[in-house]
Amino acid sequence: MTMHQYRTHTCGQLRASDAGTIARLSGWVHRKRDHGNLLFVDLRDHYGLTQCVLDISSAVFATLEKARPESVITVTGKVVSRTSDTINPRLPTGEIELQVAEIEIQSIADVLPIQVAGDQEYPEDMRLKYRFLDLRREDVHANMMLRSEVIAYLRKAMLDQGFTEFQTPILTASSPEGARDYLVPARLHPGKFYALPQAPQQFKQLLMVAGFDKYFQIAPCFRDEAGRADRSPGEFYQLDFEMSYVTQDDVFAAIEPVLEGVFKQFGKGRKVTPAPFPRIPYAESMLKYGSDKPDLRNPIEIADVTEPFRGSGFGLFAKLVDKGAVVRAIPAPGAANQPRSWFDKLNEWARENGAGGLGYIQFAADGAKGPIAKNLEPERINAIKQAAKLNDGDAVFFACDKELPAAKFAGLVRTKIGNDLDLLEKDVFKFCWTVDFPMYELNEETGQIDFSHNPFSMPQGGMDALENQDPLTINAYQYDIVCNGVELSSGAIRNHRADIMIKAFGIAGYGPEVVEEKFGGMLNAFRYGAPPHGGSAPGVDRIVMLLADQPNIREVILFPMNQQAQDLLMGAPAEVDAMRWKELHIKPDLPKPKKEG
Amino acid sequence: MTMHQYRTHTCGQLRASDAGTIARLSGWVHRKRDHGNLLFVDLRDHYGLTQCVLDISSAVFATLEKARPESVITVTGKVVSRTSDTINPRLPTGEIELQVAEIEIQSIADVLPIQVAGDQEYPEDMRLKYRFLDLRREDVHANMMLRSEVIAYLRKAMLDQGFTEFQTPILTASSPEGARDYLVPARLHPGKFYALPQAPQQFKQLLMVAGFDKYFQIAPCFRDEAGRADRSPGEFYQLDFEMSYVTQDDVFAAIEPVLEGVFKQFGKGRKVTPAPFPRIPYAESMLKYGSDKPDLRNPIEIADVTEPFRGSGFGLFAKLVDKGAVVRAIPAPGAANQPRSWFDKLNEWARENGAGGLGYIQFAADGAKGPIAKNLEPERINAIKQAAKLNDGDAVFFACDKELPAAKFAGLVRTKIGNDLDLLEKDVFKFCWTVDFPMYELNEETGQIDFSHNPFSMPQGGMDALENQDPLTINAYQYDIVCNGVELSSGAIRNHRADIMIKAFGIAGYGPEVVEEKFGGMLNAFRYGAPPHGGSAPGVDRIVMLLADQPNIREVILFPMNQQAQDLLMGAPAEVDAMRWKELHIKPDLPKPKKEG
Repeated sequence: MTMHQYRTHTCGQLRASDAGTIARLSGWVHRKRDHGNLLFVDLRDHYGLTQCVLDISSAVFATLEKARPESVITVTGKVVSRTSDTINPRLPTGEIELQVAEIEIQSIADVLPIQVAGDQEYPEDMRLKYRFLDLRREDVHANMMLRSEVIAYLRKAMLDQGFTEFQTPILTASSPEGARDYLVPARLHPGKFYALPQAPQQFKQLLMVAGFDKYFQIAPCFRDEAGRADRSPGEFYQLDFEMSYVTQDDVFAAIEPVLEGVFKQFGKGRKVTPAPFPRIPYAESMLKYGSDKPDLRNPIEIADVTEPFRGSGFGLFAKLVDKGAVVRAIPAPGAANQPRSWFDKLNEWARENGAGGLGYIQFAADGAKGPIAKNLEPERINAIKQAAKLNDGDAVFFACDKELPAAKFAGLVRTKIGNDLDLLEKDVFKFCWTVDFPMYELNEETGQIDFSHNPFSMPQGGMDALENQDPLTINAYQYDIVCNGVELSSGAIRNHRADIMIKAFGIAGYGPEVVEEKFGGMLNAFRYGAPPHGGSAPGVDRIVMLLADQPNIREVILFPMNQQAQDLLMGAPAEVDAMRWKELHIKPDLPKPKKEG
Repeated sequence: MTMHQYRTHTCGQLRASDAGTIARLSGWVHRKRDHGNLLFVDLRDHYGLTQCVLDISSAVFATLEKARPESVITVTGKVVSRTSDTINPRLPTGEIELQVAEIEIQSIADVLPIQVAGDQEYPEDMRLKYRFLDLRREDVHANMMLRSEVIAYLRKAMLDQGFTEFQTPILTASSPEGARDYLVPARLHPGKFYALPQAPQQFKQLLMVAGFDKYFQIAPCFRDEAGRADRSPGEFYQLDFEMSYVTQDDVFAAIEPVLEGVFKQFGKGRKVTPAPFPRIPYAESMLKYGSDKPDLRNPIEIADVTEPFRGSGFGLFAKLVDKGAVVRAIPAPGAANQPRSWFDKLNEWARENGAGGLGYIQFAADGAKGPIAKNLEPERINAIKQAAKLNDGDAVFFACDKELPAAKFAGLVRTKIGNDLDLLEKDVFKFCWTVDFPMYELNEETGQIDFSHNPFSMPQGGMDALENQDPLTINAYQYDIVCNGVELSSGAIRNHRADIMIKAFGIAGYGPEVVEEKFGGMLNAFRYGAPPHGGSAPGVDRIVMLLADQPNIREVILFPMNQQAQDLLMGAPAEVDAMRWKELHIKPDLPKPKKEG
């Protein structure tokens, strides 16, 4: 039997038990080391590294010597056990080496613009231009494999739960709401455009209306928005899913084991919140965590201390409270004895973040201290201590403002203190749901009622609530799933009733004709028998970022664009022939060059 | 414990063993039948149908009565066994019915533009506009589920074989060759465009260069070409895969079990060619089947009978043969005794298809008959009979032309006769590979050598063949996979060497500077160590069409565009606001309206 042309084994496969056999390997020249009369070559492929060795007297020595790092070669020779002092326990193939008898050069590498072996760092644009080299590097390679494994896991988990994957169209209609679409000129329809989907939202709802029951898709989504660390310009992926005849609890019960499972499977031993995840009403989350995306690794809980300050001797807060402000207390556990400079720094940070300052009380062993404590009666100080669950030795900071800005700023302080005091629980993925988002909010500028989040969610209480309840007290069946303070996705039980939707929009000031014009497609579908349905769409890139512990989304995407939305490897975007413009019935309307001087 | 708000069971779930329990079902009102004082409702969901029954005296009768077909309702009641004479053995739930005690209307349906129950046919545009209703119909619903199951199977089979799925970019660079790309104006780069990929060809090759080993993807592909029955305008999907360090045989061995498996799994008992599939060299396929996509269900094999006609008494062919024509014999088994009208009709068909006519010989029990036989010596007739493996009782047709048109026309005749005589094997999926495609061909008009198929395939014999062999004798490592005469995909062992690529293009008349300019991205990647690699990309839509026995691709796509590349449901393509044009730095360049008269 003849040997395979390229390999009998991969570069990660040979073991001590293979000693004595003749093997053929193909791969990249990872490193070469010259040890006097022996030349060592670490040969690398997708699966691993194998040490190959060649005597300088060998007839094929010259061939190997001219193969620069990253050249692709095929080597054939005998597998030999290494001596005990040369065994490399960190390498799965570390017990053997290959004594090279034959070499074939498959592809010679030029001098490399970026090195594959080693840990040298390169500017991002360099890495993206030579992405095919960058991807060979151990960490980047591992991130991409993690991404693929995560996606395969998610798919299997969804299929195992009875979901069916469907592909929804990528060339579709422009979406009437949300972010900016990418547009595609329609050659056959001059002056008209397709759009790439921001998400398959309408299609997944149509699938439910069409009688499918449990849909999912690892769905490509497209937004023509500026890139940032956690958002890639262009495209991103979400685990899009939707279910019919379900309540909010059914949706949670379907996705929780999938998320718990994927974080357990790929979390490298980090702890994961067991399902069912905590459900935190929006109002509670804003109060206790100053955010609707609470990072539950942070043990600090904010408390409302408006009453202790009302009419108090601390006039600054007392006056604001009289005008409708609230006061939030942010505990700093064990911080009572921090030096004055620590409190001063936080004050400075607060001013840099737009606050007037950051008042505080230190609960030292011998009583409450600091400028605020001096102006407050002991029973008021005690009420604050009770409300914020403070102990002697703790400090507490205050945010005083109108309710929403006070809550948000208290949230920033909570995060800042948690990080400064290193209070965040380590090696854990803390999940929660934020639920009961308000359906409407008051626009303070116009005095009008606006939708506060998603106008397409079902209001809790349905038509009855819309007809008989103060709109500002109506919550929606809408929810966010949050992990370590990162929003993985929004979701909702949808409004599947044309009559309820028209009523809901009416409360926000949109007449039926506006709703028909903008959302006629969906409304029309709902008029031929629509099931109650709901779902969500956790972001795949974000899940992989969390698992890989990478703050930059471009580290978990194979061929990402840079921040300027350019693909430096393939040279996109690019100019096209005049004929292509003509075919698409468009012509350039370029910005005027800026005048000099 | 309270009952679930919508359902305790699906509409396909209840059995005789459930009799006596209280169940709640939700679904669409499929059919209503009024039997005197009883109202029967077939309630339908994704999983099946359940018969619900209501006494006309029931308090909730009025509610149910007003629910038109396709309204969504929730019914609660007792599961009861049907009497033996009313059991419906064709329905999994046919042994029971639900005695409705409570009804809730979830969504009232308007009068339907197309019916869901029944077999009425509707024009395609009507079906696409109301696709959410069309998709509820049993056959269409089943086709979509088949598609999803096929794709899930393909994914699992590829993963099981050690392939890794990766997502390649959808917003990318325009491709220098092939069909027309869809273009996407780049807002941040005035005058430039992204393109949607015609296939991830360059990316999958870059993945191999980047050191990944076995890639696959259920890949969306985009071509701005006119639609036809087997090609959807806009987007389609392929099982794209690529492997490193492989020979052509390795590629075949990897994909054959996947294809055999999926056709066995979903073929509903139809036979499938067992792997390894036959490999038919291009030249042999053109000779024997008159096509590089042979339908092996057709038992007819074409033979070359040029020599028996050379210098023969049948002057028409003899003269053409002297000028370089060939003669191909297409057997028509058992057709010797067909009436004259049958042969006349075929002659007419041949003329409609651009041939001068269709000469033939009938091998009757008492000898060869027909106009040609009269002008041929017996030994020549015998040579034809031998060459075409004819028996008494058969007829044979002839195609005489230059080699390529003769082969192609013989192929048409083969298909026509196979169908007319009903010779095609039934209930079978016949696979084969077409291999050994020629690398080059002579352009008869220019006298130049052109690439005959894919310029990026590795020539058999590599650089040595390019340097030392007549280019017209060089074959490429290129192959098609064919099922029942349908090309599922092309594939190749790629040319991974910049030097061989420049040489190969040189033979076809392209200088190195042209190659660098057009394909610089790939060439550059090949200069830093590229592994030998190859793959293919079977069309997913075509696989599903074959399995579902649907000649129209729109029957296997959820939300297809119509032939005019319009999405009638979502209203795409559509006009966009002037602001969007401005942002994209383009303006309309509309065709002039045609003058009247």
